[in-house]
Amino acid sequence: MIFSSKLIEDAVKEFSRLPGIGKKTALRMVLQLLRMDENEVDEFTGAVSRMRHGIKFCKECHNVSDSEVCGICVNSGRNRSQVCVVETIRDVIAIESTQQYSGLYHVLGGILSPLDGIGPEQLNISTLHDRVKANDMTELIMALSPTIEGDTTVYYIARQLKDLPVMITTIARGIAFGGELEYTDEMTLARSIAKRLPIENYVTIKGN
Amino acid sequence: MIFSSKLIEDAVKEFSRLPGIGKKTALRMVLQLLRMDENEVDEFTGAVSRMRHGIKFCKECHNVSDSEVCGICVNSGRNRSQVCVVETIRDVIAIESTQQYSGLYHVLGGILSPLDGIGPEQLNISTLHDRVKANDMTELIMALSPTIEGDTTVYYIARQLKDLPVMITTIARGIAFGGELEYTDEMTLARSIAKRLPIENYVTIKGN
Repeated sequence: MIFSSKLIEDAVKEFSRLPGIGKKTALRMVLQLLRMDENEVDEFTGAVSRMRHGIKFCKECHNVSDSEVCGICVNSGRNRSQVCVVETIRDVIAIESTQQYSGLYHVLGGILSPLDGIGPEQLNISTLHDRVKANDMTELIMALSPTIEGDTTVYYIARQLKDLPVMITTIARGIAFGGELEYTDEMTLARSIAKRLPIENYVTIKGN
Repeated sequence: MIFSSKLIEDAVKEFSRLPGIGKKTALRMVLQLLRMDENEVDEFTGAVSRMRHGIKFCKECHNVSDSEVCGICVNSGRNRSQVCVVETIRDVIAIESTQQYSGLYHVLGGILSPLDGIGPEQLNISTLHDRVKANDMTELIMALSPTIEGDTTVYYIARQLKDLPVMITTIARGIAFGGELEYTDEMTLARSIAKRLPIENYVTIKGN
């Protein structure tokens, strides 16, 4: 693409660095910004800049936060005996958006993956032990990827915490609501039959 | 979506204002910016800000420009007797990217569309007349949408310029290179047969 303006070319180049954004999409965004009022564009760049420079990571749960300790960890209305262990902040947003979970979180920052050079030291695992112990937490809900790496991480954490009186659970795997049996992969289908529930449980969960 | 950080929420909201960007895509971009170094993000916001505040519109052809007159209009190597009339700056980028056109441009800023309240006063038509007259231009290449509005605009401009000794042409419509006959719409196919070229012309154009 040949631009007659260096200013536009630079802005397109910057947008092209974002994931999934090619030159044409970047140009479309830049031209949209060009149509917007100058103060609207200042709001855009201001929000991005404030976000990048102002963001902190909660020293309790390692979630992104606007302050030293995040809004979830300081919220006295949450169940402080439960902690849900997730890989990324994106998982926190997904679970929070269900509005069904009222416990705390612990963001590992990834999962164990020796091939990618990610060992226990690269993840927020040591702080998890201290946190569970100091707060007398009773349940650790593992919400990690259903992969070998995820299972390895669950197993590793369980071993690290075996001296503590905490129950470790994992989120249910199965066929999604609205999912079609015939299009479900064999492993999920097999496990969803093996882990079947009595119907009273099913009704309770749906009615919840 | 529920974010535990107002900074992230604001940035996602700003990205969601761009065309074709939903909340999930916006979040993906924001998280990518979060992974980037602070100075890289400063380059991003800086390029966007400089673009919006620094951009000018060429007083000759109304194309976007970094200065009063754009790089195409000041380029003495270009054919100053030809002017290609387009709707938007995006069309200029598309034609420039072919590297086959060496004349000048004139950006109308849209096409006549009475239903949308776009009349001749909303477009850069009056400056076109003055420009063609002042520069003794000999050819006006109309590269507008092949729609009723586009044809109306071509006709209107031709009438406005009928006192000037300028030849008005339109870009060729037909089947694209690599296009399949059977999937071409009937109107394009019919016109491409009606406007067929002697084979010498075809060879000349391909060899050009």
